[in-house]
Amino acid sequence: MNGEALYSFAEEQLVEPVRLAIVGAGYWGPNLLRVATELPQAHVEFVCDVRPDALQAVARRYPAPRLTTEFDDVIAAEDVDAVVIATPPSTHRTLCLAALEAGKHVLVEKPLATSVRDAQTLVAAAERTGVLLMPGHTFLYSPSVNVVRDLIQAGELGDLYFISMSRVNLGLHQADVSVAWDLGPHDFSILRYWLDEVPSMVSAFSRSCVTDVADVMFVSLEFPSGTIAHAELSWLAPSKLRRTTVVGSEKMVVYDDTSNEPVRIFDSGVVLANPSTFGEYQLAYRAGDVVSPRVAVTEPLMLELADFCLSITRGSKPRSSIEVGLDVVRMCDAADRSARARRPRRPEPLDARATT
Amino acid sequence: MNGEALYSFAEEQLVEPVRLAIVGAGYWGPNLLRVATELPQAHVEFVCDVRPDALQAVARRYPAPRLTTEFDDVIAAEDVDAVVIATPPSTHRTLCLAALEAGKHVLVEKPLATSVRDAQTLVAAAERTGVLLMPGHTFLYSPSVNVVRDLIQAGELGDLYFISMSRVNLGLHQADVSVAWDLGPHDFSILRYWLDEVPSMVSAFSRSCVTDVADVMFVSLEFPSGTIAHAELSWLAPSKLRRTTVVGSEKMVVYDDTSNEPVRIFDSGVVLANPSTFGEYQLAYRAGDVVSPRVAVTEPLMLELADFCLSITRGSKPRSSIEVGLDVVRMCDAADRSARARRPRRPEPLDARATT
Amino acid sequence: MNGEALYSFAEEQLVEPVRLAIVGAGYWGPNLLRVATELPQAHVEFVCDVRPDALQAVARRYPAPRLTTEFDDVIAAEDVDAVVIATPPSTHRTLCLAALEAGKHVLVEKPLATSVRDAQTLVAAAERTGVLLMPGHTFLYSPSVNVVRDLIQAGELGDLYFISMSRVNLGLHQADVSVAWDLGPHDFSILRYWLDEVPSMVSAFSRSCVTDVADVMFVSLEFPSGTIAHAELSWLAPSKLRRTTVVGSEKMVVYDDTSNEPVRIFDSGVVLANPSTFGEYQLAYRAGDVVSPRVAVTEPLMLELADFCLSITRGSKPRSSIEVGLDVVRMCDAADRSARARRPRRPEPLDARATT
Amino acid sequence: MNGEALYSFAEEQLVEPVRLAIVGAGYWGPNLLRVATELPQAHVEFVCDVRPDALQAVARRYPAPRLTTEFDDVIAAEDVDAVVIATPPSTHRTLCLAALEAGKHVLVEKPLATSVRDAQTLVAAAERTGVLLMPGHTFLYSPSVNVVRDLIQAGELGDLYFISMSRVNLGLHQADVSVAWDLGPHDFSILRYWLDEVPSMVSAFSRSCVTDVADVMFVSLEFPSGTIAHAELSWLAPSKLRRTTVVGSEKMVVYDDTSNEPVRIFDSGVVLANPSTFGEYQLAYRAGDVVSPRVAVTEPLMLELADFCLSITRGSKPRSSIEVGLDVVRMCDAADRSARARRPRRPEPLDARATT
Repeated sequence: MNGEALYSFAEEQLVEPVRLAIVGAGYWGPNLLRVATELPQAHVEFVCDVRPDALQAVARRYPAPRLTTEFDDVIAAEDVDAVVIATPPSTHRTLCLAALEAGKHVLVEKPLATSVRDAQTLVAAAERTGVLLMPGHTFLYSPSVNVVRDLIQAGELGDLYFISMSRVNLGLHQADVSVAWDLGPHDFSILRYWLDEVPSMVSAFSRSCVTDVADVMFVSLEFPSGTIAHAELSWLAPSKLRRTTVVGSEKMVVYDDTSNEPVRIFDSGVVLANPSTFGEYQLAYRAGDVVSPRVAVTEPLMLELADFCLSITRGSKPRSSIEVGLDVVRMCDAADRSARARRPRRPEPLDARATT
Repeated sequence: MNGEALYSFAEEQLVEPVRLAIVGAGYWGPNLLRVATELPQAHVEFVCDVRPDALQAVARRYPAPRLTTEFDDVIAAEDVDAVVIATPPSTHRTLCLAALEAGKHVLVEKPLATSVRDAQTLVAAAERTGVLLMPGHTFLYSPSVNVVRDLIQAGELGDLYFISMSRVNLGLHQADVSVAWDLGPHDFSILRYWLDEVPSMVSAFSRSCVTDVADVMFVSLEFPSGTIAHAELSWLAPSKLRRTTVVGSEKMVVYDDTSNEPVRIFDSGVVLANPSTFGEYQLAYRAGDVVSPRVAVTEPLMLELADFCLSITRGSKPRSSIEVGLDVVRMCDAADRSARARRPRRPEPLDARATT
Repeated sequence: MNGEALYSFAEEQLVEPVRLAIVGAGYWGPNLLRVATELPQAHVEFVCDVRPDALQAVARRYPAPRLTTEFDDVIAAEDVDAVVIATPPSTHRTLCLAALEAGKHVLVEKPLATSVRDAQTLVAAAERTGVLLMPGHTFLYSPSVNVVRDLIQAGELGDLYFISMSRVNLGLHQADVSVAWDLGPHDFSILRYWLDEVPSMVSAFSRSCVTDVADVMFVSLEFPSGTIAHAELSWLAPSKLRRTTVVGSEKMVVYDDTSNEPVRIFDSGVVLANPSTFGEYQLAYRAGDVVSPRVAVTEPLMLELADFCLSITRGSKPRSSIEVGLDVVRMCDAADRSARARRPRRPEPLDARATT
Repeated sequence: MNGEALYSFAEEQLVEPVRLAIVGAGYWGPNLLRVATELPQAHVEFVCDVRPDALQAVARRYPAPRLTTEFDDVIAAEDVDAVVIATPPSTHRTLCLAALEAGKHVLVEKPLATSVRDAQTLVAAAERTGVLLMPGHTFLYSPSVNVVRDLIQAGELGDLYFISMSRVNLGLHQADVSVAWDLGPHDFSILRYWLDEVPSMVSAFSRSCVTDVADVMFVSLEFPSGTIAHAELSWLAPSKLRRTTVVGSEKMVVYDDTSNEPVRIFDSGVVLANPSTFGEYQLAYRAGDVVSPRVAVTEPLMLELADFCLSITRGSKPRSSIEVGLDVVRMCDAADRSARARRPRRPEPLDARATT
């Protein structure tokens, strides 16, 4: 239950490591490089960024792969099997498409794309060229997220009443997308992973405080199963919060990746007991032990990259699958549309033609 | 700035204390009794409850006032100037109306009533009989709430971007009203007090998890000034949260009455700096000192009761005024209607005739 | 394991409640009065304090017992079975002795007395007159303290390596005794209760920062079993700390009465594994689940007072026994002497003659 | 006041970077390598470790310097100006001496040596060969530690009453020295830096719980100025604590490097007011604002290494001077001796001959 099964990813040996190019050496790219450098299943051939100084910074810190400012070098290189895209969201469509059409497998940072249409275009391209397209939903590899998922799937929490999520801190404003597309994919991918369903309705409320994109958003989500969820997303906050509360009929869980005890299980609840003949509710409250299970400390990004490489080699489907990626884009899109319309919105249905 | 001005309420001497009857000896009534017993401006003549055992429990713990199970005794008593109502919300209309029509001043626990119409009926009755009707919005007397209000009014926070509130804990489910009417009045009265305005739109999202009243609700509020607010209200939670974040353009504040440092001021923010000629945002983040100002430890309930007594004696308007009480009812009502309709709703306008 | 057995004290019915006089209406006396008022096994006949204003404050808040400024009234009263002493430590000897010699049972706030000789004098007097003398070591009735004691006694923690305690906050300086006699009795009584032994050596280090009594003290204690303990005691601290860590060979416990989860059990440790042939240690660290067991919320003072009354009626020995009281005085005395001598000191042996 | 002056170290440019060899690629060595790689004032020529696998791990992660298992290669290399020693404490004497005698400047991880005699031997060797010998007391470069030092030196805290330090966590046991020599140097170097004095007396109390070296120690220190200090040091603890409280007559400070707000200043205290004619103390408690000043986030290790390189180039004395290093060894030694003797011990005086 502590996420240890995840280790198997990183331990498995491949005959030949997958040869990677990492595109984007800004905030997240160096993490991918660091992890790829340590992973036996991967070998970094190229790092690509349009900014020469970003490449130099990489060269100072890591054993030297080839460096280039030209994306075309990367997709033309015969010794590159797969491309890892860690550039701003608005560039995903163009870069991924070019890489897919060059026959490269692609791991692209969340979100897959910034519209449902673009996401479907990428999926179609990957199907056409027979390569793997994987969105980088890192939280699906978080040991804590998996501990909670195991609890949910084992029925330990009972019926899932609601999930309340806060993901706020000061910065970093994105220039090209709202906070729904930037922070939302984390919580939406976790919800999709835990509940195995897509919301039937999304209702968002936002404000563009500093620039003209929404930088604070309150998103309510209603799922077909009856579970509801709420995510507070903000680039404006006095301190960092990463707090998710899962309330079930049997137990409750607090998941907070910033805590030393990232998963806390509360044996608490309320039960309808002995309903009187007069129709009054007799509620009994129960507050039992609180348990913080040991959680493995494996780095999720390493597991994600290992899953990418192993899925290429085996031809299998990664945990962070294209279906998850598409659904997360649909949720981001519905939240953004709802916030603008100030009315609840349904996630856009997938166009069957686009993905076949 | 630390709420010390509030002390003046409790220190002021009256020639004659106000003679009170306390109606309702359940959860909150004994607190009112304890406070009234210590307050020089008040004298408790009666405690009334329909349950004899609740009265006996009172008698064991407090210097003995007269006890009665008959509300009629209370309103018929000539030595009772004012009645303090601490009974379930659904009884407020009937009990308050009877007391007001008997010429008694009334302090009624929040919410004033459970519909805008009922609230206006009570206001009209109080105006007709010329007595004071005061809703018990205790947080308006909280030193912490007043520290934050002073910061807002002095402009120290800059433009108010948004306010995010969480008020959750396990229990106590109310049988007769949703969580919007039970926990909502606290946050709504604070918002009304801080912002001096009523929301133009309320959008709520809820679920009735345990009984058939909503026990978890996410409420978004939009104010005419542009400020937005959000309140998470729940009777189902693994642990108690009382966290309010106020985000302004200059500073941010966290207010948490459960903390040893209930008000924390963050000199943090983000500024649009040197906009480039190409329309790109240059954002500068600023994270400065954090200050927890000393906050007076006066009990808000004592100040509320003192304000009630002094307002009766002086014929003045209490801080927790009838206008605040009406607006809070309008906000609760709009939240409840929005949650049921699953659409944003405007607060019901006040019927000018009803209150004149 | 959650201290529920403690409830039995408060539930047991007596034919006749014990008739009490409470002496001292300062900081702690009103708590005793409040608890005695609610306890079916007790009936308060008298409250005594030399300060008339302290008595008036009592009269305003509680159902009225008789009030007096004369201690002689109390010990002369035929309808007083027992006297509860909540006066400054330096007065304990005189007041207790007078009460005991008048044939009254005595519950005296910690410490029993301010010297081993005085404590033994009181014990001898109680034996002579055949009444109960009980020191008020309230923590022995704390559900949390009992949860930890149960863990220790069940061997769940393994060998007890050490116990580290911090009990610090701003104030209240005592005029007549050092912090060793004021805060020390809490920690020393807990140690005595958990370990069932008295330290063989006490080494204390202190400073008199503000007045001429020591207001900060670091006390190390060595027990015959090999367990060591340390207590940081201070009236000078920026914030309140009540943190006790118990480190055993199998598990570790943090006990903190100021926390919502006052007992936390860490399944953590270090084991000497596979010692190599070259004498090098191979240590394996283990960090498992953390459990916060549910702890009953009964008020310890109520249980203490119930134990006092029941022990009088039954002629039985209370949990907070005179043996515990004497040993705590020995520990306070050894700490104080060590701090002054700046050398380790042994607790003073009990004079066999004095107590027989 | 926020430690920004520290930045100047890292920003200053040198004509020629200092050519370093890093000896020891275990726990701490890779941090030194990472930092040296990024620092413009340094250039890493060699990494040395007796374990080939440790060297291989280094090669995988960092741009490749030369690697060797032979310490003699390092000190024989003409293109090595300075040696950075990050090996177990018991090896410091031998390795440092060899490097110093080869004319290399030496930065050695704390503690400088494991006896006062050895430390003095190294100092004498450095003086003889005219090179820089610098102990790696990293906390002297911590922005937080410097914020507190500035407060102390500016007199903002008033008279320093006492300092209470806790540095505990689970592991890592050292095979060759007690916890006094392992964790102690951190707190002792901070005390030496803040107070600018060496204790006149050290009293330590310890236990060897798991192996035969002391793994938990409570150390009391008395300084000539009257300030006292206490450090709780342990490799056995349920959770990591890094909490230092500084209590002054005017203000109090909590310093905790594990917190988001590592320095918190409490405007709290107690004052002797209006002493009555009868000798009774009238104490007034004061609890004012709490301020968490912004603290720079520079990495202390980078500043330490920059200071080492700049001091070599300029021939100046580093902040973490040899005098500090000697005094820290004296404090560790006194603590260890006191713990064994179970009696207070004075720090060993320096042998004037040894260092001249």
